[in-house]
Amino acid sequence: MKRDELEEILEANRYYIRGGKLANYIPELANANPNTLGITIAYSNGEIISVGNCEEMFTIQSISKIISLIMALQDHGHEKVFSIVGMESSGEPFNSVSELETKESHKPLNPLINAGAIAVASMIKGQNVNERFSKVCQFLYRITGNENVTLNRRVYESERETGDRNRSLAYFMKSTGVIKSDVEEALDLYFRLCSISVTCSDLAKIGLFLAMGGIGQGSQLKKVSPEIVQFVLSIMLTAGMYNQSGECMMKIGVPAKSGVSGGILAVAPNQMGIGIIGPSINDKGNSIAGLKILEDISRRYKLHLFSK
Amino acid sequence: MKRDELEEILEANRYYIRGGKLANYIPELANANPNTLGITIAYSNGEIISVGNCEEMFTIQSISKIISLIMALQDHGHEKVFSIVGMESSGEPFNSVSELETKESHKPLNPLINAGAIAVASMIKGQNVNERFSKVCQFLYRITGNENVTLNRRVYESERETGDRNRSLAYFMKSTGVIKSDVEEALDLYFRLCSISVTCSDLAKIGLFLAMGGIGQGSQLKKVSPEIVQFVLSIMLTAGMYNQSGECMMKIGVPAKSGVSGGILAVAPNQMGIGIIGPSINDKGNSIAGLKILEDISRRYKLHLFSK
Amino acid sequence: MKRDELEEILEANRYYIRGGKLANYIPELANANPNTLGITIAYSNGEIISVGNCEEMFTIQSISKIISLIMALQDHGHEKVFSIVGMESSGEPFNSVSELETKESHKPLNPLINAGAIAVASMIKGQNVNERFSKVCQFLYRITGNENVTLNRRVYESERETGDRNRSLAYFMKSTGVIKSDVEEALDLYFRLCSISVTCSDLAKIGLFLAMGGIGQGSQLKKVSPEIVQFVLSIMLTAGMYNQSGECMMKIGVPAKSGVSGGILAVAPNQMGIGIIGPSINDKGNSIAGLKILEDISRRYKLHLFSK
Amino acid sequence: MKRDELEEILEANRYYIRGGKLANYIPELANANPNTLGITIAYSNGEIISVGNCEEMFTIQSISKIISLIMALQDHGHEKVFSIVGMESSGEPFNSVSELETKESHKPLNPLINAGAIAVASMIKGQNVNERFSKVCQFLYRITGNENVTLNRRVYESERETGDRNRSLAYFMKSTGVIKSDVEEALDLYFRLCSISVTCSDLAKIGLFLAMGGIGQGSQLKKVSPEIVQFVLSIMLTAGMYNQSGECMMKIGVPAKSGVSGGILAVAPNQMGIGIIGPSINDKGNSIAGLKILEDISRRYKLHLFSK
Repeated sequence: MKRDELEEILEANRYYIRGGKLANYIPELANANPNTLGITIAYSNGEIISVGNCEEMFTIQSISKIISLIMALQDHGHEKVFSIVGMESSGEPFNSVSELETKESHKPLNPLINAGAIAVASMIKGQNVNERFSKVCQFLYRITGNENVTLNRRVYESERETGDRNRSLAYFMKSTGVIKSDVEEALDLYFRLCSISVTCSDLAKIGLFLAMGGIGQGSQLKKVSPEIVQFVLSIMLTAGMYNQSGECMMKIGVPAKSGVSGGILAVAPNQMGIGIIGPSINDKGNSIAGLKILEDISRRYKLHLFSK
Repeated sequence: MKRDELEEILEANRYYIRGGKLANYIPELANANPNTLGITIAYSNGEIISVGNCEEMFTIQSISKIISLIMALQDHGHEKVFSIVGMESSGEPFNSVSELETKESHKPLNPLINAGAIAVASMIKGQNVNERFSKVCQFLYRITGNENVTLNRRVYESERETGDRNRSLAYFMKSTGVIKSDVEEALDLYFRLCSISVTCSDLAKIGLFLAMGGIGQGSQLKKVSPEIVQFVLSIMLTAGMYNQSGECMMKIGVPAKSGVSGGILAVAPNQMGIGIIGPSINDKGNSIAGLKILEDISRRYKLHLFSK
Repeated sequence: MKRDELEEILEANRYYIRGGKLANYIPELANANPNTLGITIAYSNGEIISVGNCEEMFTIQSISKIISLIMALQDHGHEKVFSIVGMESSGEPFNSVSELETKESHKPLNPLINAGAIAVASMIKGQNVNERFSKVCQFLYRITGNENVTLNRRVYESERETGDRNRSLAYFMKSTGVIKSDVEEALDLYFRLCSISVTCSDLAKIGLFLAMGGIGQGSQLKKVSPEIVQFVLSIMLTAGMYNQSGECMMKIGVPAKSGVSGGILAVAPNQMGIGIIGPSINDKGNSIAGLKILEDISRRYKLHLFSK
Repeated sequence: MKRDELEEILEANRYYIRGGKLANYIPELANANPNTLGITIAYSNGEIISVGNCEEMFTIQSISKIISLIMALQDHGHEKVFSIVGMESSGEPFNSVSELETKESHKPLNPLINAGAIAVASMIKGQNVNERFSKVCQFLYRITGNENVTLNRRVYESERETGDRNRSLAYFMKSTGVIKSDVEEALDLYFRLCSISVTCSDLAKIGLFLAMGGIGQGSQLKKVSPEIVQFVLSIMLTAGMYNQSGECMMKIGVPAKSGVSGGILAVAPNQMGIGIIGPSINDKGNSIAGLKILEDISRRYKLHLFSK
């Protein structure tokens, strides 16, 4: 794909930044620039094309859930991890409490809803929160080569101060035995992971890493097995876009994960990783312009898994 | 009623201490003596009759919710209190989270389910938790004249350590604005209130206080208005016995409140207050022998509000 | 109570007929006159006072649920009836399906929500729907002496044609075994019972019948035992006013049952039966002016069960 | 794949026919032979390999939901169809009522849960139920070339007689406007579609038809556009295996649809269609041996969409 084609797609969808609104569930996110719009594609041949505001940093938010899942799968294997969280998509909003209660096992439905992600974060091994967080950052650094992939302290503090719904989910899981470690530590790590600063380019590189089955440049990265990548892409496909995942599968047809800061990471297996930023989100939590852009990219370049 | 009639009722229902089981949701409660069985009735003429193990102390547990409600109504008036909690019975278990989520207002259904009681406790005025707790203890002392109505520290610590479900409810309410004050302080007060030691005699005296419309000996007690008593008896009648309240209204027909330690406080307006202890509880959280005893007392002495 | 006092209460609350709106869930109900307002009180001494539009007929709607319950209790006894429906208030709207599904037993929570009332109607004995319906009408005739207590055919047809939500409830209960007889017959009887025409005066007389413990003039009526009356008044108290029952207990404090046509039947035990009509209802399904009038009557004449 | 490899897979999983149990929600299904086990693969080059009991006929059950969806999409286009049913996976059992009620729009979550499938069936055009059913049968005949793809009358009658849960769902949707046509006709068609007799070979041929993007031999079949096939495969991938769909995506990774008679239809795009029968199902409604066989086929021949 040539740069001017990508620019054309970006401009064709600039209109949609007016729809939706900035995430306001934590005060700091409401300060984002609603006009930001950027796309980066990282191709399997090493080429990287960025258009729009790709230098701007934003917090990774829920996209970190796939990183946590990779780490937990590496630390414990899939049998252990999926004895704690389920594999099913939910149809419910990402922060639902009632769902936890009504399921017989009280097991979070999947690792990409908040409850599941907090439970998964509680499994990442490390002496303390600092060490666990640092392990994740090093992993991201090796994939992205970006030293700026670090904590946005203001967002982190905002998350921690206003994270009472997540605290409620976590204590519920503590009461049912899903979380076995210290609740406040698990939450602290979860809030930090959501507050990591990234760019579109970083998302695209993580996407490419997954697109190539976990093969990266650094030697340590070889530890992410093809099986883990297969699990992660699968759950992204069925549950990566909150309770709009089914619609995205129909219309876009590639594994993707979104965050409420307006970022989207998408993966075209064996071909490319895609990173998009557009802070205006819909009521499901997905970037409105980002979805439109991803749909255009998928359609024009036949990325849908079932395209002819 | 003569003592031997009451003894007869107690012995006739001793059989039921075998049914059900001790509350085990906090470890300390599981150490209760399952054979304890006691009844105290405090009559409007000042007479008090006790049969069985009425000297034994047990923790007040959910019965404290009516005390909290009285205090909050005194501190804020009923409009304010019922803007925070509802007045409706629930049909759900006392510690349900999902109910909070599915109601449009996220308002706890009533002040006698855990969520509602934590919200009500968060409204009691005082400089700090110690002062608030001390205020409640003084109130109880004035009604019961029992200086031993104090904290059972082991139960309190057990509550606090294992209270993650209640923590989940409280943080959920913090996230929706139902709780406005410090969550951990509200929980701390709630756990302390549940851990107050009482006897059957204390419960009977509190019951009599309500039966007489809030008239007690001490001058300070006059502050509990007849209107507050009317509210408290009403909610006891419709929601005092967990999700068995409707059945109790049908079969027993007097305002009552139970606790998972096996205590029951019942009120026959203008006539008497009743305190019962029997630690084996059913799956709703009510003392099995206690319910049978209360039904017998109600039937034999025509206490049912609609008896002929 | 003198007539002019009652007229004063009526006029003082006429303002409230502007609030709320007419029931529109069946087309025929939306044709009611929103300005209708009437009160009848039938006293234990035989006196009857009516003020306002007490000659106007309206359909009994949900108030028929207490008549069905009486008939089923007479036909089967309370153990059988309450093995089919529960005794607990619900906190949910009257036509909830999900509640049926999430309760373990799939048993309707109580006989006064739609599901429970349909199940109860399915238990009334009789060769066919005609015979069962005629049995109910004769029962009402004996209490009210009003030969016009008959089917409003247009409302009945409207109910039947638009009763798909009730059909859904009924087939659900058929699938779980709660309804054992023919579903369409049970629904047909239920729709007919809701479509019986009554006046305020009829409601007041039914109320008085219950207030006096089931004692009426006709010899056949002696069959309604005091125990049945006790059950019916109890469930009216905890669940008679839809999911506003707890609030009504607090503020009004007498057993009552409302219908979406704007009728309210209330009972002051040993004293009086009250019938009120005011077609504008709130979002819970209760007459707005009717509630205000009942609250005034209760306050001025100290009918609240816990009034001092 | 050679025949002996497929036989090996079949024998390796024969053990699993002992797990689970026959569907018993309609009496007729409980009469199936639990020892039946069969696999057919239809390759893109025209080759067909069958092993085990592939001559046995069984009813298509929920697999018919994808046929209904194709017909409705042809008759109305995807915008109309997906204004009536959603695209999201559910996490709930296939026959949930409560889910319908709690979603704001009362829209069935997707076309593959019972509610959604009944709504979709109600959209298929035709003068009457006979004509609509005949249209579906002709469509199947053109794909499979099997004249025996017709109604199993005994299963149909069993479905119709015991289909009260589905009736409940349908009347609920009538009450909310999701179903606009005659409810009993919609149900009748739905019951007939579930009762169509097929073999593994038929399923494999339908699978191949989808695998090749809707290209079949008959000229009429060209009407199924690649876009429709893309929609159908997408929803199969996210919601085709009841509330085990996420797990199947992770472990198997191809679009598939199961039925409670124990049939599974799977699609490897551009490569093959797979039909499997094994009547013992798990608590989610999926053939236990069938799942194991499909997982083995997927693993050995790298069919998983994200396999390396």
